[in-house]
Amino acid sequence: MTLRAVHNFSTDLGQALLRRARSDCDPFLRRAIGSIREPLATMAGYHRGWWNAHGSMSEGSSGKALRAALVLAAAGACDGDTSAATPVAAAVELVHDFTLLHDDVMDRDSTRRGRPTVWSVWGIDSAILLGDALHAAAIRALTQLRDPSVAVEAIMRLETACRDMCIGQFEDCRSEGRPDVTIDDYLRIAAGKTAALTACCCALGALSANADRATLAALEQFGYELGLAFQVVDDLIGIWGDPAVTGKPVGNDLGRRKSSLPVVAALNSRTGAAVELGALYQTTVAMTQSDIDRAAALVEVAGGRQAAQQYADTRIQNAIGALPDGVRSEDLVALAQLACRREH
Amino acid sequence: MTLRAVHNFSTDLGQALLRRARSDCDPFLRRAIGSIREPLATMAGYHRGWWNAHGSMSEGSSGKALRAALVLAAAGACDGDTSAATPVAAAVELVHDFTLLHDDVMDRDSTRRGRPTVWSVWGIDSAILLGDALHAAAIRALTQLRDPSVAVEAIMRLETACRDMCIGQFEDCRSEGRPDVTIDDYLRIAAGKTAALTACCCALGALSANADRATLAALEQFGYELGLAFQVVDDLIGIWGDPAVTGKPVGNDLGRRKSSLPVVAALNSRTGAAVELGALYQTTVAMTQSDIDRAAALVEVAGGRQAAQQYADTRIQNAIGALPDGVRSEDLVALAQLACRREH
Repeated sequence: MTLRAVHNFSTDLGQALLRRARSDCDPFLRRAIGSIREPLATMAGYHRGWWNAHGSMSEGSSGKALRAALVLAAAGACDGDTSAATPVAAAVELVHDFTLLHDDVMDRDSTRRGRPTVWSVWGIDSAILLGDALHAAAIRALTQLRDPSVAVEAIMRLETACRDMCIGQFEDCRSEGRPDVTIDDYLRIAAGKTAALTACCCALGALSANADRATLAALEQFGYELGLAFQVVDDLIGIWGDPAVTGKPVGNDLGRRKSSLPVVAALNSRTGAAVELGALYQTTVAMTQSDIDRAAALVEVAGGRQAAQQYADTRIQNAIGALPDGVRSEDLVALAQLACRREH
Repeated sequence: MTLRAVHNFSTDLGQALLRRARSDCDPFLRRAIGSIREPLATMAGYHRGWWNAHGSMSEGSSGKALRAALVLAAAGACDGDTSAATPVAAAVELVHDFTLLHDDVMDRDSTRRGRPTVWSVWGIDSAILLGDALHAAAIRALTQLRDPSVAVEAIMRLETACRDMCIGQFEDCRSEGRPDVTIDDYLRIAAGKTAALTACCCALGALSANADRATLAALEQFGYELGLAFQVVDDLIGIWGDPAVTGKPVGNDLGRRKSSLPVVAALNSRTGAAVELGALYQTTVAMTQSDIDRAAALVEVAGGRQAAQQYADTRIQNAIGALPDGVRSEDLVALAQLACRREH
């Protein structure tokens, strides 16, 4: 195969794995969400893209299910019965949904996956309570696992990831508009916000497949590196992505003076562009569209875009390199490449 | 002993049990809260009354710890080693803290236990994230229990209570200012908001003491009835309590047109006072202090105060009646009476 053909094959495989993760998890998610009383269950299904705000069927996107796919692929790579990993994959998706609901409130994001966010349809109180209820539903799902020792370890790992996500999100909120954020600060925040959960996903897949401790640790490392790459690619999409492809509004991150990696790298570059960008980030006046366009251009001139892309590529190589030969499956490699090569 | 002496003895015993619960749980709570990174840990300690907003020692009240005391008393009544129940009691307190943090955001309450609430000191985002982190910390604490089967059942029960609390709080928010709330609606909301967790506390105490299923169910019923009584007494305190004794601002519930039991009973009384109260509850104009005083008087004239007190008394009798002879301990009875006889 040519390099292009290898790339296409990997992308197709990655997409197929996401589709399978979505359909495998679907019955577990419907059961878990069904156990929350109305109208919270309707809101949860809306958030997942199952129906519109009135409960009628809709064509909404239900998110990628990358995290569920990581659980299943990690279990599969350990020769595990992936059916044992499916409730775990569903629990991870519920936790991801819970954090998105609360993050949208904190970030005042009014759209997600191209549709109004839950808080902007039903109010902040509903979004807080629904997040809490999904957090509980995720853990309840794990209590149903057959082996209580596995259930307890899975719960402990998932709640540790939740704690780390809270701390990461807290530091992220606090870093907005601060021009003195270092690359180390950025990495610590991204590790909590994103890599903690992807690392946990891969560890949980290994755990459900009864992998030995060394394999579990290697898969956890894979998920961690992949999560950092994923966050950086998310940052790139937030500035240069095509909203029609990614479903994410462009310019928001810059307008909100977020400390994304391209910006942090640019600000730390000691270039003239860094000085001008720093001035734009230091005021609190709302940015106009032309300010945002100017900021994006400055980040690129200062080398922030290239540095971020390079960083993501390196992390993906590290991720794949962390896998011992026996578990370096096509599926895991395809998911790693997919996470790093979203359209932007 | 005279009746008065019996009452005093029971109150003294109840207070001693609360003090013991607070001191027994303290090391577990400090460990759990210490595992959350700064500055969230400082906020959590502030919320518990351990220190002021700057982290210096303070004389703040750390709450009653009634729920922890219920766990310990239930375990003790089953002849259990209460030391095995202590981490469970601490986990329940963490869940209670998590729900208070989120409830204060939703209810826009600016004081709790006589001090500014976390959201009013550090902002809404911090209060949401701290609540999420304490939810995770509570469940993490339960994963440390020695027997994985007990841990899994405890987690399942506690998360089910969390789900029910979310639904109860949701319905409570939605019932504000609605004059058509029935007593059945009220009871369903109070069951979710309050009784779900007190029932869970008593069940978890029994579970940590390896009680048989029938005893566990009886203790759960005891906690459920006690929780309903506790909520009704809370409603009474919200209208007629002495803030110096209870630490709760008076008039808030009426000013916010809350559907507390005294109000719901009054509105459903078909008296002239009910009509006037209904008119006050149906407008959305902010109530003045004299409106609030008038509303309190109308609730009393319409019999709402008496009906609520009677309801609380009946539920406490039911609670004690639900206990089989072997587990009807002095401690459980003292806590039930304490919950029902707070100053108001």
